Amino acid sequence: MTPHLDRVEAALSRWVGVNAPVELGDAMRYAVLDGGKRLRPLLVLAAGEAVGGHQDAMLRAACATELIHAYSLVHDDLPCMDNDVLRRGKPTVHVKYGEADALLAGDALQALAFELLVPDETDIAPAVQASLCRLLARAAGSEGMAGGQAIDLASVGKALDEASLRRMHRLKTGALLQGSVEMGAACAPQVPAAVMKALREYGAALGLAFQVVDDILDVTADSQTLGKTAGKDAASDKPTYVSLLGLDAARAEAAHLLGEALSALDRSHLPDTGALRALARMVVERDR
Amino acid sequence: MTPHLDRVEAALSRWVGVNAPVELGDAMRYAVLDGGKRLRPLLVLAAGEAVGGHQDAMLRAACATELIHAYSLVHDDLPCMDNDVLRRGKPTVHVKYGEADALLAGDALQALAFELLVPDETDIAPAVQASLCRLLARAAGSEGMAGGQAIDLASVGKALDEASLRRMHRLKTGALLQGSVEMGAACAPQVPAAVMKALREYGAALGLAFQVVDDILDVTADSQTLGKTAGKDAASDKPTYVSLLGLDAARAEAAHLLGEALSALDRSHLPDTGALRALARMVVERDR
Repeated sequence: MTPHLDRVEAALSRWVGVNAPVELGDAMRYAVLDGGKRLRPLLVLAAGEAVGGHQDAMLRAACATELIHAYSLVHDDLPCMDNDVLRRGKPTVHVKYGEADALLAGDALQALAFELLVPDETDIAPAVQASLCRLLARAAGSEGMAGGQAIDLASVGKALDEASLRRMHRLKTGALLQGSVEMGAACAPQVPAAVMKALREYGAALGLAFQVVDDILDVTADSQTLGKTAGKDAASDKPTYVSLLGLDAARAEAAHLLGEALSALDRSHLPDTGALRALARMVVERDR
Repeated sequence: MTPHLDRVEAALSRWVGVNAPVELGDAMRYAVLDGGKRLRPLLVLAAGEAVGGHQDAMLRAACATELIHAYSLVHDDLPCMDNDVLRRGKPTVHVKYGEADALLAGDALQALAFELLVPDETDIAPAVQASLCRLLARAAGSEGMAGGQAIDLASVGKALDEASLRRMHRLKTGALLQGSVEMGAACAPQVPAAVMKALREYGAALGLAFQVVDDILDVTADSQTLGKTAGKDAASDKPTYVSLLGLDAARAEAAHLLGEALSALDRSHLPDTGALRALARMVVERDR
């Protein structure tokens, strides 16, 4: 995956905050560059290659998903939300640039995500551009990531049942991860409906697995390894898979979801799903 | 313009926050519905009608510009920015729903703005959808509205010259107003370049005029009439056209910009620019 990662890093560096005025550009670049696992871009590129997508569309979609993810972290770390000072082992954006610039940098990153999908002179089919915007907007918005964060916020101190917890996570983390897979697939003009369905199911299982593992790591890993504050969920009395099911059952759930993701790939009948398989394993077996 | 306004209000009410979870939907609707002059939507619709645009595309673009405007107000009113408690005569969103939900509502409104432009089943040409997303993203982002707000933030307490002040306002307010005009025009598939240029110049002059008048009203009007806190610029030591040029010269500048906007419309040679003319007059002659 190293060539993929290198392409994404180079593109982000070329596209993010370059012409932005005053400190805004610096804050945007600080929020995005030199950090992060780039899981969403890797999913876009892996799904795009599995279906033979348009290369420039894939790279743009890959970066767009990372910008949405990065903006959500900037806003999520603000004092009125999680009030966190450490992210990817560095001071959070508002600690470094102040709250107002952090707020604006997040806002500008969201706009830039969409801008990347609709370049001025391009051979990306307009229908592909429109599809990518549609998938990203839904994944990011009130019925996706932002909606999930609102549920998360409203759930502090509450006992959720597993169905409610799953719904929260499907939106908060799952929507953008699943959306990344779908965006990769949308970079090819005509993907059969059955393939799209299988990839969507892969994305859904992987998205939920990611959050289950996040909940596990919040308990089992230390801040240094994570690059962010560990033990936060328990400290802020947030319902998690671990608090609800216990550590062993949460681990079993993650393994089960990995199996679901892999069997969805079998159902896609795509000739090469090696990268997608490797990413699913990486999500479940990661230690940070 | 009443039929236009009615269509916009009905569409916003149908599209905003309807399926959003918990309080997020309420906060989104509170931020958008039942308030505001709807200047940006009116500009979209007037420009769209002048060029014979696609009706559903025009309505969607109209609402999208208003959502971007509304989200910017929600974020701008937050304590870390302007810390304002009054907007359109009502408590601001964070006063009513808390800062975290206000932040998320703004984020979700921005995503929704783009989502509206790329509906699932539609006869809007994909190239029109992509153009609308491109214009909106640029108007909203770091080289548009968000960039202007960052300059504004960095300018507090500084003496700007007129060129810097103009640049700040061209981005902060002008970009989205001009973008609204361009988006209206982009709702027709093939508008001649000369017509687009004239409409862009109309939008630029009107956008700057809007901000000059805003600066004047901040000094001359009271909070009750404005529906927001008057005298804020002076209190926060922000450079404005009035502080830079004085009240009389600022008024002369507004009149001059109105003339520029109207003569740009003459150059467009479009057969019916009545609504665009009326909007330019309204911007300069308004008392709130």
